[in-house]
Amino acid sequence: MSSSASPAGIELVHVGLGPIGLHVMSYLDGRDAFRSVAAVDPALAGQTLERGGLRVVRDVTELGRRGGVAIHCAGSSLAGAEPTLTALLSSGHHVVSTCEELADPWQAQPEVAARLDAVAREHGVVLLGTGVNPGYAMDYLPIVLSASQRSVRAVDVHRVQDAGLRRLPLQRKVGAGLSVEEFGERVRGGTIRHVGLPESARLVNRALGLGCTGFTETIDPIVAEKPVAYGEGLVEAGHVLGVDQLVVASRDGEALIRLHLQMAVGLPDPRDVITLDGEPGLTSVVRGLHGDSATAAVVVNTLGRVGRAAPGLRTVDELPASPQYR
Amino acid sequence: MSSSASPAGIELVHVGLGPIGLHVMSYLDGRDAFRSVAAVDPALAGQTLERGGLRVVRDVTELGRRGGVAIHCAGSSLAGAEPTLTALLSSGHHVVSTCEELADPWQAQPEVAARLDAVAREHGVVLLGTGVNPGYAMDYLPIVLSASQRSVRAVDVHRVQDAGLRRLPLQRKVGAGLSVEEFGERVRGGTIRHVGLPESARLVNRALGLGCTGFTETIDPIVAEKPVAYGEGLVEAGHVLGVDQLVVASRDGEALIRLHLQMAVGLPDPRDVITLDGEPGLTSVVRGLHGDSATAAVVVNTLGRVGRAAPGLRTVDELPASPQYR
Repeated sequence: MSSSASPAGIELVHVGLGPIGLHVMSYLDGRDAFRSVAAVDPALAGQTLERGGLRVVRDVTELGRRGGVAIHCAGSSLAGAEPTLTALLSSGHHVVSTCEELADPWQAQPEVAARLDAVAREHGVVLLGTGVNPGYAMDYLPIVLSASQRSVRAVDVHRVQDAGLRRLPLQRKVGAGLSVEEFGERVRGGTIRHVGLPESARLVNRALGLGCTGFTETIDPIVAEKPVAYGEGLVEAGHVLGVDQLVVASRDGEALIRLHLQMAVGLPDPRDVITLDGEPGLTSVVRGLHGDSATAAVVVNTLGRVGRAAPGLRTVDELPASPQYR
Repeated sequence: MSSSASPAGIELVHVGLGPIGLHVMSYLDGRDAFRSVAAVDPALAGQTLERGGLRVVRDVTELGRRGGVAIHCAGSSLAGAEPTLTALLSSGHHVVSTCEELADPWQAQPEVAARLDAVAREHGVVLLGTGVNPGYAMDYLPIVLSASQRSVRAVDVHRVQDAGLRRLPLQRKVGAGLSVEEFGERVRGGTIRHVGLPESARLVNRALGLGCTGFTETIDPIVAEKPVAYGEGLVEAGHVLGVDQLVVASRDGEALIRLHLQMAVGLPDPRDVITLDGEPGLTSVVRGLHGDSATAAVVVNTLGRVGRAAPGLRTVDELPASPQYR
């Protein structure tokens, strides 16, 4: 971390001050290992933040500085993020990003991945996509658990999230309150979809050497059987509570990775269930991986270790586990 | 891995061919990334192993070779292992060891730790103590899970193992079949004790920055209420089924880490329960971490990544997660 550590801690640049970016910022309170030194968001340009009295600039080209770690929370599209990421890496920043498509872009977007990897290597810094999903619950944890197994033949992950406990944009994103017809239209239009499941499947596939080549994704509504109250009002019976999304990865027609995500208002018993079919096989049930909170926590707990990986575009399984900066 | 990778795979030296060492060796079947090139065990010296037709030598000084990864499965005592570890490191081997006291020796045995660290750095290799416990179930997993939390105030781990499913030496080690009096004598004599709980507590304490300075360990018998059959015969009612061991780590008199291990014949529902008291807090229940099998698996799944850490004495939280060699 020679490029980013200083007596006052690791210097942080905040890029993107939407709900996730601000959530991450709030989780830095009391962490003396870090010091926020700049912030970027076109929507807030010119304003002054409470944290560190930072004046927000419009664009990363206005930073006029080098080094430290940039926290990039500005959208799910890797193509859309590439110019900003390239600028940050070129000015010598390690980058920890919540861009879902960055979690494992090597197979889905190989040209973009190769370009970003080259820029990061050239400038001796690390680029990493992470968060709770993708980046932790449905990929990193199964990979970590696989280390206890002689062999793993297949992986099944079932994540259940109560969207009623989450931020309002998420409730809209999962389609809460829509009719089944409206939900179907928005799925076809691409506005209802959790981005990141195929990335998680590719990460698991590659880390465990499962050899899957076929990836399918289906998105269905979870429909209310009776009226359900939530943050923005009421979901009537027969209307949509949220999304039921499934990615299956196969080798020679055999489904070896199954990632099943249910995010809807009012879902009981939020949990993450991981089943490894292997020798001897394993089941893990975790309660407490709440989406927004866990994404902010995972990002903050990654800041101190991202610089300990080899320069380049990295995936979460390549970092050391310990969240502490030391 | 430049010092150990070759077209034929990573070269392995097997040091210690007891139950664990042989278990590890059997788990290498079908893993083309590795190639066994030498074996060391005084009890088997001169014999030829089925695996690779290796002729076993008596001592590491007879190896006459350099490089690759040594798998060291030869006892729990770090002081006892130091000469062998030093010889292996000095001859350019990365070392993955199941020596329990090596899992985190920095606080308990700082002089030995410093000496081994210096030798490893001097020769550009990594020394790591691992296994399922210590090394995974009660330390690595809680550390990994902490990354999802804004903050962690306290850690509680409860590991339940049915010793009846395990190798016979373990059943003897936990005192199965003894009277309560014999059990107490052997605890006082130091022959009944699972080695590694304080090491796990120190690993968690350091990785999570909990600041504990006091460590206590208690060992009690689990007593049969009715006769219980097991591998070597029958435990009569009133006699010992196994061990109930507890390590508590405290800061300013407050217990912040509680590691509770129960290993006995006939214990129902073997499982690992991790509870993180924090924001927001988390509970994890894993079924499938069987001691001997998981130790062998963890060791084998570590061989490909030990060389990706910086040279020196390392702890498991400093390695990348992905078990694959690539």
